[in-house]
Amino acid sequence: METEIYFKFILSFGLILLVARLGGAIAERFLKQPAVIGELLAGIIISPFLLGQFLFANDPVIMNFALIDGVFSQNGEHLSGFAPMEIISQIAVVVLLFVAGLETNVTSFIKNSFTGAMVAIGGVVVPFALGVFSAMYFFPDLHMAGWLFIGAILTATSIGITVRILMDMGKLSSREGTIILVAAVVDDIIGLVILSVVISMAQSGSVNALSAVTTGVIGFAVWLGILLLGVYGHKYISKYILTPFKSSGTMPVMALIVGLIVSYLVTLVDLHPVVGAYVAGLMFASTMEKEEILHQTRPIMLFIAPFFFAYLGMQVDLREVWAVIVPALVIVVLAIIGKIVGCYFPARFVGKTSHNGAMIVGVGMVPRGEVGLIVAGAGLIAGAITRDLFGIAVAVSILTTLVMPVMIKPFFKPKAEANAKRLP
Amino acid sequence: METEIYFKFILSFGLILLVARLGGAIAERFLKQPAVIGELLAGIIISPFLLGQFLFANDPVIMNFALIDGVFSQNGEHLSGFAPMEIISQIAVVVLLFVAGLETNVTSFIKNSFTGAMVAIGGVVVPFALGVFSAMYFFPDLHMAGWLFIGAILTATSIGITVRILMDMGKLSSREGTIILVAAVVDDIIGLVILSVVISMAQSGSVNALSAVTTGVIGFAVWLGILLLGVYGHKYISKYILTPFKSSGTMPVMALIVGLIVSYLVTLVDLHPVVGAYVAGLMFASTMEKEEILHQTRPIMLFIAPFFFAYLGMQVDLREVWAVIVPALVIVVLAIIGKIVGCYFPARFVGKTSHNGAMIVGVGMVPRGEVGLIVAGAGLIAGAITRDLFGIAVAVSILTTLVMPVMIKPFFKPKAEANAKRLP
Repeated sequence: METEIYFKFILSFGLILLVARLGGAIAERFLKQPAVIGELLAGIIISPFLLGQFLFANDPVIMNFALIDGVFSQNGEHLSGFAPMEIISQIAVVVLLFVAGLETNVTSFIKNSFTGAMVAIGGVVVPFALGVFSAMYFFPDLHMAGWLFIGAILTATSIGITVRILMDMGKLSSREGTIILVAAVVDDIIGLVILSVVISMAQSGSVNALSAVTTGVIGFAVWLGILLLGVYGHKYISKYILTPFKSSGTMPVMALIVGLIVSYLVTLVDLHPVVGAYVAGLMFASTMEKEEILHQTRPIMLFIAPFFFAYLGMQVDLREVWAVIVPALVIVVLAIIGKIVGCYFPARFVGKTSHNGAMIVGVGMVPRGEVGLIVAGAGLIAGAITRDLFGIAVAVSILTTLVMPVMIKPFFKPKAEANAKRLP
Repeated sequence: METEIYFKFILSFGLILLVARLGGAIAERFLKQPAVIGELLAGIIISPFLLGQFLFANDPVIMNFALIDGVFSQNGEHLSGFAPMEIISQIAVVVLLFVAGLETNVTSFIKNSFTGAMVAIGGVVVPFALGVFSAMYFFPDLHMAGWLFIGAILTATSIGITVRILMDMGKLSSREGTIILVAAVVDDIIGLVILSVVISMAQSGSVNALSAVTTGVIGFAVWLGILLLGVYGHKYISKYILTPFKSSGTMPVMALIVGLIVSYLVTLVDLHPVVGAYVAGLMFASTMEKEEILHQTRPIMLFIAPFFFAYLGMQVDLREVWAVIVPALVIVVLAIIGKIVGCYFPARFVGKTSHNGAMIVGVGMVPRGEVGLIVAGAGLIAGAITRDLFGIAVAVSILTTLVMPVMIKPFFKPKAEANAKRLP
C-alpha cells in the first residue's frame, strides 16, 4: 500500500506548521517583530535549499514535494512543476483573506474606495516606470517585453503579509488598513491588465490593448458585483445561505465554504483567488451573522495561515538571489521606494491621511510576495525574461516582503504612544 | 503559469465540503439521520463514478485527482496511484481523532481499558473466523493467503465514523463511547499483527509469527508510552509545550501541531496515524489546558472533518460492488454479525454494561470504512486477493459504514426516552 506517502504529507504539514510557529514565537519574543516575519524566515531556513537538504536528503517526499518548481516523483513516474503542498498553501491564504474580508468595515471600505483606487494607481505607475528604466540600464540587450516584465513584477502587491501584520497589530479596520485593502484589490485588477499586455507582447510582439482592458473591466465588474450582492443582498444571503445551517451549528463553516468557491470563481475572469476570498469575506461582513462567522473561522485561520508564509519562504533559493545580487539590490531598493512614493502621495493628498498614515499605506503596499513570483514565473514561461532576471524577481519578492514588517512599525508607534499618554 | 491547477484544487476542496455539508444537512433534517451518513452518500453521488463523470468529464483535475487509484496527469507526464486531495483527507481524519482524544475522559479511558481490550479481541476473532470460512465457501479455488486476507479485512475497525456519530449525539464520553475508543486502538494493534502475518504469508508462503508479534508489541509500547507521558507528564507538557505559546494565543494551535507530528511518528512503528492522533489528543486531555485547546480546535475539526467522509464516499465505485453482489452481501452480513457478536459479549459480561450499552459497543465497532480498504489494497498489491475480492472489500467497507448510524440509533433512544420520562 502506498498510504505511507500520505503519512509523510501529514508530517510535512505538521513540520512546516511547527517551524512556522517556532519562528513566529522567536520573532515576537526575541526580535520584537511580527510573527509573520519569523514564519517566512523559518521557511527559508528549512527549505530544501538550506537545512532541508541536510535533514531530509534521503526523503524526497518531505522536501521536494514542497517545491513549486520541483519534480514530484513516485515509483519511477514523475510530474514536474506540481507541488502537492501548494494546494494547502493556497487554501491557507484564501482562508486568511476571507477572514480579513469579514473583519473589514464595509461602509468604511466603500468610503475609502476612491482614495484606495488612487493609491493603487500611484503604486502601479511609479514602480512600473522605475522597473522598466532600471531593467533598460542593467540589461540593455534585453528586448522590450523583458523590460516591461520587470516593470510588471514591480507593480505586484502581495496583500497576505500586510493583512497579517495589520491583524496582529489590531489595525486591520483602521483607515490605513482599509485603504490598503481597497488598493490591493484595485492593484490586482490593474496588474491583470498589465500582465495580459506584456504576455501578449512577449508572445506575439504586438499588443492587444483592447482585449487586455476588456479583461480588466470584466474582472472589476465581477468583483464589484459580488461586493454589491453583499451590500444590497445581505438579507437574502442570511436567509438562504446562512439561516438553514444555524441549527446544526455549521453556519460559519458554510460561509467559509462559499468563500472557497467564490475564490475559485473569480479566477475564471483571471482575478487572483485571494481577491475573491476577500470579497466573499466582505459579502458576509454585511450580514448580521458577521461576528458569529468570525468567531468560528478565526481559529481555522490562526491554524492554517502560518503555513502559507512558511511555505512561501521555502520557495526561496538564496543562491539564485546571490548570483544577481548587485542589480537585484538596486531594483529592490527601487521597488521599495517606488511603491512608497506612488502610494504615499495619493493617500496623503487624496485621502488626507496624516504623514504617518500615508507612510503606513505606502509601506504596507511594498511586499510583492508570491504575486511577484507568479508574474515572474509567467514571464519565464512566456520566454520574456531569463533565469537571472527570475533571480531578481525572487530577490524583489523576498526582500520587499521581509523588509515591510520592520519598516512599518515605527509609523504605528507614535500614535500608540500618543494614545498611551492621552489615556491615563 | 501553472497556477490554475492549484485554483482548481481550491474549487475541489470547496465543492467537496459543500456537497458534504448539503448532504449532512439533508440527512439530519429530512432523513433524521446523523450528518455523517449524508456526507458519505453525497461523496458517493458526486464521485467520478456517478455524477462526477457527467459534471466534470472535461476536467480531469477536479475529479480524477480526487481518486486514490486514479492517474494524476499534467502536461503529458503522469503519476499513478497518487491523489493530492487524499492529503487533505488524511489531515481531516487526524484532526477529528485528535479532538476525539481531547474530549475523552482519561481516567475513564484507563478504567475501561481491560473491557475495551476484550471487546477488541472478540471483535477480531469472530469476524476473522467468519471471514475465512465464508471465503473458503465462496472462493474454494483461492489459496490460504487469500482466505486469510478476507478474514483480515473483516477484523478492521474504522473509528472515524463512530466517533463522529458519538460526538454528534453528545455520547463520546459515555462509558460505551470510551469502551469503543479503547477497543478501536487495541483493534488497530491486533490488526497490525494480523496484516503482517497474512502479507508475509502471501509473499513468502511462510509465517514469521515472531516478527509479527514483535511489530505488535512495539506498536503497543509506543502507544502506551505516549499515553503515560500525558498521564504522568502533563505538568511538563503544559510547562514546556503549551505555556510558551499562551501569550500569543497560539497555544491550542501548538497542541494540534504536536498532534499532527505524533500521528506521523506512530506510523514509523506501523500504527495508523489516527491512532497517533487519538493518543496525542488523550495526552493533552490530561493537561489543565484541555478546555481551551478544545475550544479552539473544535472549529477546525467542524470545518475539515466532513471532507474526510465525503472523500471516502467518492472512492466508491458502485459497479465494482455490483459485480460481486451475492457473495458480497453475505459477507457484509457476516461482517456485521461478527463484529456485533464478538464485541457484545465482552462488553456485556466483562464490562457489565446494559444490553443496550453492549449493543452500542457492538454496532459502534461495525464500520470498516477506509481501514478495510487499506487492508484490501495491501492484499491486492501483495497479490493475495483478486480484483473481484477487492470489490467485496469495497462492499464491506461501504455497507458496514453506512449501516452503522442507522443501526445504532435505536439503542440510544430508550435511554433518552427514559431520561425524558424521569425529568418531567
